[in-house]
Amino acid sequence: MKIYRRTLLISLFFTGLVGCQSIQLEEPNIKITKQLQQSALASPLAYDLVESLTVEVGPRLAGSNKDLLAVRWAENKLIKLGFDKVYKEAVQVPVWSRGEARAEVISPFSQPLVITALGGSIATPKEGLRAPIIRFDTLESLKRANRSDVEGKIVFIDHITERHKTGKGYGKTVGGRSRGAISASQKGAKAIVIRSIGTDHDRMAHTGMMRYKDGVAKIPAAAMSNPDADLINLILKRDPNVVLDLFMSSQSHGFATSYNVIAEVTGNSKPDEIVLIGAHLDSWDEGTGAIDDGAGVAIVTAAGKLIQDLPQKPARTVRVVLFAAEEVGLVGGKAYAKAHKNELEKHYIAAESDFGAGRIYQIDYRVNESALEAIHAVSSPMVGNGVKLGSNTASGGPDVSMLPKQGVPVASLRQDGHDYFDYHHTPNDTLDKIDPMALQQNVAAYAQFAYLMAQSEVELRPITTGANLKPVIIEAK
Amino acid sequence: MKIYRRTLLISLFFTGLVGCQSIQLEEPNIKITKQLQQSALASPLAYDLVESLTVEVGPRLAGSNKDLLAVRWAENKLIKLGFDKVYKEAVQVPVWSRGEARAEVISPFSQPLVITALGGSIATPKEGLRAPIIRFDTLESLKRANRSDVEGKIVFIDHITERHKTGKGYGKTVGGRSRGAISASQKGAKAIVIRSIGTDHDRMAHTGMMRYKDGVAKIPAAAMSNPDADLINLILKRDPNVVLDLFMSSQSHGFATSYNVIAEVTGNSKPDEIVLIGAHLDSWDEGTGAIDDGAGVAIVTAAGKLIQDLPQKPARTVRVVLFAAEEVGLVGGKAYAKAHKNELEKHYIAAESDFGAGRIYQIDYRVNESALEAIHAVSSPMVGNGVKLGSNTASGGPDVSMLPKQGVPVASLRQDGHDYFDYHHTPNDTLDKIDPMALQQNVAAYAQFAYLMAQSEVELRPITTGANLKPVIIEAK
Repeated sequence: MKIYRRTLLISLFFTGLVGCQSIQLEEPNIKITKQLQQSALASPLAYDLVESLTVEVGPRLAGSNKDLLAVRWAENKLIKLGFDKVYKEAVQVPVWSRGEARAEVISPFSQPLVITALGGSIATPKEGLRAPIIRFDTLESLKRANRSDVEGKIVFIDHITERHKTGKGYGKTVGGRSRGAISASQKGAKAIVIRSIGTDHDRMAHTGMMRYKDGVAKIPAAAMSNPDADLINLILKRDPNVVLDLFMSSQSHGFATSYNVIAEVTGNSKPDEIVLIGAHLDSWDEGTGAIDDGAGVAIVTAAGKLIQDLPQKPARTVRVVLFAAEEVGLVGGKAYAKAHKNELEKHYIAAESDFGAGRIYQIDYRVNESALEAIHAVSSPMVGNGVKLGSNTASGGPDVSMLPKQGVPVASLRQDGHDYFDYHHTPNDTLDKIDPMALQQNVAAYAQFAYLMAQSEVELRPITTGANLKPVIIEAK
Repeated sequence: MKIYRRTLLISLFFTGLVGCQSIQLEEPNIKITKQLQQSALASPLAYDLVESLTVEVGPRLAGSNKDLLAVRWAENKLIKLGFDKVYKEAVQVPVWSRGEARAEVISPFSQPLVITALGGSIATPKEGLRAPIIRFDTLESLKRANRSDVEGKIVFIDHITERHKTGKGYGKTVGGRSRGAISASQKGAKAIVIRSIGTDHDRMAHTGMMRYKDGVAKIPAAAMSNPDADLINLILKRDPNVVLDLFMSSQSHGFATSYNVIAEVTGNSKPDEIVLIGAHLDSWDEGTGAIDDGAGVAIVTAAGKLIQDLPQKPARTVRVVLFAAEEVGLVGGKAYAKAHKNELEKHYIAAESDFGAGRIYQIDYRVNESALEAIHAVSSPMVGNGVKLGSNTASGGPDVSMLPKQGVPVASLRQDGHDYFDYHHTPNDTLDKIDPMALQQNVAAYAQFAYLMAQSEVELRPITTGANLKPVIIEAK
């Protein structure tokens, strides 16, 4: 009751500040968002969904048989949940298999290492390869190195990922994973083995996508666990000449068809306008894809179901999109943007849940700067669920990150990610890492968000960038 | 200063209680134990030793080349540290190789599992084996099962290891690992795959020794990680007919020679009387053997070195024993007891450090009940290092656990083991799991213990059992 009164006061305050916009945070909206929260916090649906997906499907690497099984799983679930519409859209996705990855220090001491192939990597020669390693603190220091120092060696990027609630440590180190092979190859390296982009001390390597570049020779790329990277440092302290044996049999297999799976709650008065809440259905192959991104699938599906079950649907259509092949290059997200190009102007806002199941503590937007306070006023009932109203610097999440360039406003519902990168992209991404109560809080936040956005009368466009607040220019396609 | 006064008071108190025994807790002893503590807490030696062993040798499975490398490492270190005597004693140890271990649920859903072979297990047939699983809560429930329910199946013992500071959860579940294959085979099972004996939620399986029994068919035995055991339960909830594919290529290779490596600080006035502090040099093969038992090796070696460096040696000889092949059946410990049979009556007391590097919070003895208070009085300076004076129920540690039967008093320096079974017998047993300051506290405790025992004038024999306090009968050999 206290919260209810406070949110009303906040609304009135914001209404005063931005009187030029019609905010329409009417009492029924507040009541309904409160009910959505209560329903979400009492419902086992999201946990049941992520349990079902991880147990009955499990690992579902894009383009694999299990990926198609996940698509069928999603269609069946969404139909069974009674969404107004359920359909899928074909996406061509790259197919890659991990194979085996083994590494061993053979000099000055013999030490087997725990490694894993980075996604998209080529294999080593069948007999493996042997070379001395050369260590770099960061990708940047590799870029500054002399070719003569790197040539013929295995590059070891030793960049430690820092733990932060926001997960911002990942952004600082992930370049070494995604682009390290290009830089290493440009300097003549035979292979690259990075310190895992992860905050844990488990002897598990973190996989994740890497890229090659046309005109630059492809070299094998792997990650070693953090304890293994520590070990290499201690060996280097004793002898700078560390020789590694590396064997990898990962392989690319062309393309296959996968699907974005979509469910909708048809809007009551503006059915052609879309509020998109998404997650990605694919996962890496070593865990069961619980936090990445079974949790997101469960959160947005359960949130959509709560809207579906309302006695009166909100004005706009709420569209739940379960994207294909996020891990291997945001493939489903890009395909969606292309397939829905002509409809993007009707997308009121989009947000993706793809950061595990940690509690949401803040919502950031990316809207026209002058609309920020008004949309904050609209969002104010979310405060009662522990969600602060934040900045105008959202990216929206990986699969919708290309939409702002096309004029679509986005929101980022920021989750507590302090342990997300302990498990991310490892065999440790399993159901036990999800806190059911935190998952429910996420469902409440997404349900409230979707409902409030579907009812909002605030004009969010043209969106402005976070940095300089200039309007984003919509690219001509 | 406060502690110093208190320990003196405690000594006087105990002297009053047990006036029939000469306690001799003289001021010089108190001063020296205080100095030993200060030196231990200021010394990087133990950490340097465990770093050196894990980095320069690493995994050292009994009977492997790396095991012999560890023996050479130990001899060299002990000689370099300047012990009065350094020698080694040959031990015949069983040789076993892990090979590969793979398992996959193939029905009702396909799910690859993370497993590892239990030590000593035979392989599956080359083509692997396929069978339905049958789940048991405990080894005891397997023992009660009908043969017709078990025959032709893969037994899954699902006993969860509870977390305790004392590590007592392990004692409740480890029987399923060590003896499960015998019971399963007696009921006609094709194989056994247990829930890991570990307190973690990492997707790593815990290995450890298992046994067969003459006259009972050998069947393959493996452990799955805790998240995999959770997964199996969730699959069973959906369908009781769960079929597993299992492949293992582990193999026994007869016997090889390894060594107990021994160092001594020769006693000043009773050089033929022995205070034994030990640890084991071998490790499992998947980690680098940091907590099990690199830590113990480092603790007792560094403690011995502190005694070695005293201006005046204590009365008795302090013997540091680095046992061979503990993991594969206390082989070094048994060999020591046999080789030193005629000298055991001269062993004043023995203790092994084999529980990681958690802080020591208590010392338990196994001595004549009437001597307990007197030996507590002697040990009272240890209180200043955070060590409480405990019970008379010690086992002494695995490699000295057979000594009480032969009349040798033992002590158990109890460590905080709340996280020990998170890492125990997994690839996660790496150097980063050791807290250098806790390691130093252990060194201080062992140095104080060794010194005080080497000076003590309390008669500890004949030892009495903890339970009924009857004297232990020394077995005729």
